[in-house]
Amino acid sequence: MTKDVISLDDIMDAAQRLRGLAVRTPLLDCSAADAVCGGKMLIKAEMLQRTGSFKFRGAYNRISRLTDDERKKGVVAFSSGNHAQAVAAVSGIFGIAATIVMPADAPAMKIDATREYGATVILYDRFTESREDIAAEIVATQGATLVPPFDHPMIIAGQGTAGLEIAEDMMARGIVPDQVLVPCSGGGLIAGIATAITAHFPDCRVHAVEPSGFDDMARSLISGSRETADPKARSICDALLVPTPGELTFSINKNLLGKGLAVEDEAVRAAMVFAFRHLKLVAEPGGAIALAAALSGSIDCKNKTTVVVMSGGNVDPALFREILDQTSA
Amino acid sequence: MTKDVISLDDIMDAAQRLRGLAVRTPLLDCSAADAVCGGKMLIKAEMLQRTGSFKFRGAYNRISRLTDDERKKGVVAFSSGNHAQAVAAVSGIFGIAATIVMPADAPAMKIDATREYGATVILYDRFTESREDIAAEIVATQGATLVPPFDHPMIIAGQGTAGLEIAEDMMARGIVPDQVLVPCSGGGLIAGIATAITAHFPDCRVHAVEPSGFDDMARSLISGSRETADPKARSICDALLVPTPGELTFSINKNLLGKGLAVEDEAVRAAMVFAFRHLKLVAEPGGAIALAAALSGSIDCKNKTTVVVMSGGNVDPALFREILDQTSA
Repeated sequence: MTKDVISLDDIMDAAQRLRGLAVRTPLLDCSAADAVCGGKMLIKAEMLQRTGSFKFRGAYNRISRLTDDERKKGVVAFSSGNHAQAVAAVSGIFGIAATIVMPADAPAMKIDATREYGATVILYDRFTESREDIAAEIVATQGATLVPPFDHPMIIAGQGTAGLEIAEDMMARGIVPDQVLVPCSGGGLIAGIATAITAHFPDCRVHAVEPSGFDDMARSLISGSRETADPKARSICDALLVPTPGELTFSINKNLLGKGLAVEDEAVRAAMVFAFRHLKLVAEPGGAIALAAALSGSIDCKNKTTVVVMSGGNVDPALFREILDQTSA
Repeated sequence: MTKDVISLDDIMDAAQRLRGLAVRTPLLDCSAADAVCGGKMLIKAEMLQRTGSFKFRGAYNRISRLTDDERKKGVVAFSSGNHAQAVAAVSGIFGIAATIVMPADAPAMKIDATREYGATVILYDRFTESREDIAAEIVATQGATLVPPFDHPMIIAGQGTAGLEIAEDMMARGIVPDQVLVPCSGGGLIAGIATAITAHFPDCRVHAVEPSGFDDMARSLISGSRETADPKARSICDALLVPTPGELTFSINKNLLGKGLAVEDEAVRAAMVFAFRHLKLVAEPGGAIALAAALSGSIDCKNKTTVVVMSGGNVDPALFREILDQTSA
């Protein structure tokens, strides 16, 4: 029997490390969502995390464990924007130089914020260049440590602290969740959350939610091996465009997840407006996709207790205005 | 010596009653606000409360104590919108009939939401009619119980639970606040918060923040008696237009508050955009006014620890779009 990539102990250890540094984000009731879905909905509001997404958890858990020598040589990361901001912010806390490789078409506010946290940003073309190759070059020449966005045990354990908080809050309220819906790209967040949730609630199903056309996790769960998204697929969910599940994350997810769900951009827009109206939360498209799955009926929530993870809120004002305009006119 | 209107015990009793029903709203760090203000800022996010504002706390504390006989005869309230939604929602929890007297120019989403919670809404003209008189008529004819928006010990104690949570969170983190900034209209929220905060931190100053032209609390604190706002004054802060401090709330506030602050609408708009960008929170104008005071330099926050209470997030999408447009173009 092979050793698991991470255990509940790794997540509890990460939680100890993050205490007082990460926001313990609230698990919010939402009677308006209850009414739409016909069940009990609970919202884990990770856009309230430092840097506006859950990514602070994993980045801190990894970077805080670097040796003094490693810290001197700096870190490098590739990211569509949320991991970028998290690595930049955590590096700032420790006074470590950070270089971040970001797609040139990432939201302007994500690129700006990453620079504001003090990182050096290198832009690349998402469709013709390899961010992994660019990052590997920096590792080779500078001796910097790569902080991967999802496929690393410490990153997965860090993200899993969000799931541990959900489990603790549910137990404190005496509620057993039937299902947890989690936005999914490389699969780090959901691998960590699934580890924490199934340890506490073995009968609870954890479902990955992906944009239509980027349902590589859903298809991988069916085939049993790592599938790849159609290179021609496009989505407004800029945070969820990784084309294939991670190796480590999939080794966890294939054992722990229920079936994957795919959601259209239109439902994502509607969920962003719903969050504005009823939750008073700013969600970015990828951050709203699990809520979209519940509200649009992609999964049956009737007479069930469903936890919806909202993973981030880093959305350009122009796009937010446009979505408020179109959907609430 | 006269008996105090409320004590810390009343607030702790209200907190016990609200446990598991009200959201324990988070006290959020915000490094972007720290940078602007040159001090440590902590944000109490009451727009995440049920019904989108702190008003649920007081309404629940009052209505949950009605006798069976009182419940049968229903409740009545007058409100610019947030207390309306709270009374409507709490009445729904207990199956009590609720009639709410609201200004005809209240935000459409506040009127709609109040109706959606199941209340009967009666509209009046804010500038020519008396909401108190209309409500008194309903009390007289129907035997309904009036749930006042601020000038009642149980309402004040209920709102004070927000302050108790702030104090508990500060103590858990080992931080002593220098000042707490609170949006102020009738003065119920700040009276409750000041009671809870000064009981725990006697040296902490609690400041009321009002819209320019509606600085009746600021002037009342100077004169020592209840002053009235200029009837010609206007502000986008629809939740903060009560023209004079309450009698009970002022008897508390005159002893516990530091000087009052007045803020221009322009600074409120900027604070709403700041909350969108950096906190991922939807604030209504009145809900953002204490943040506006800090960000615009109405009060010195340099090298201090400042708690900013954001009191609500019930803003019409059209106004929110307009403010995002103007301020972040």
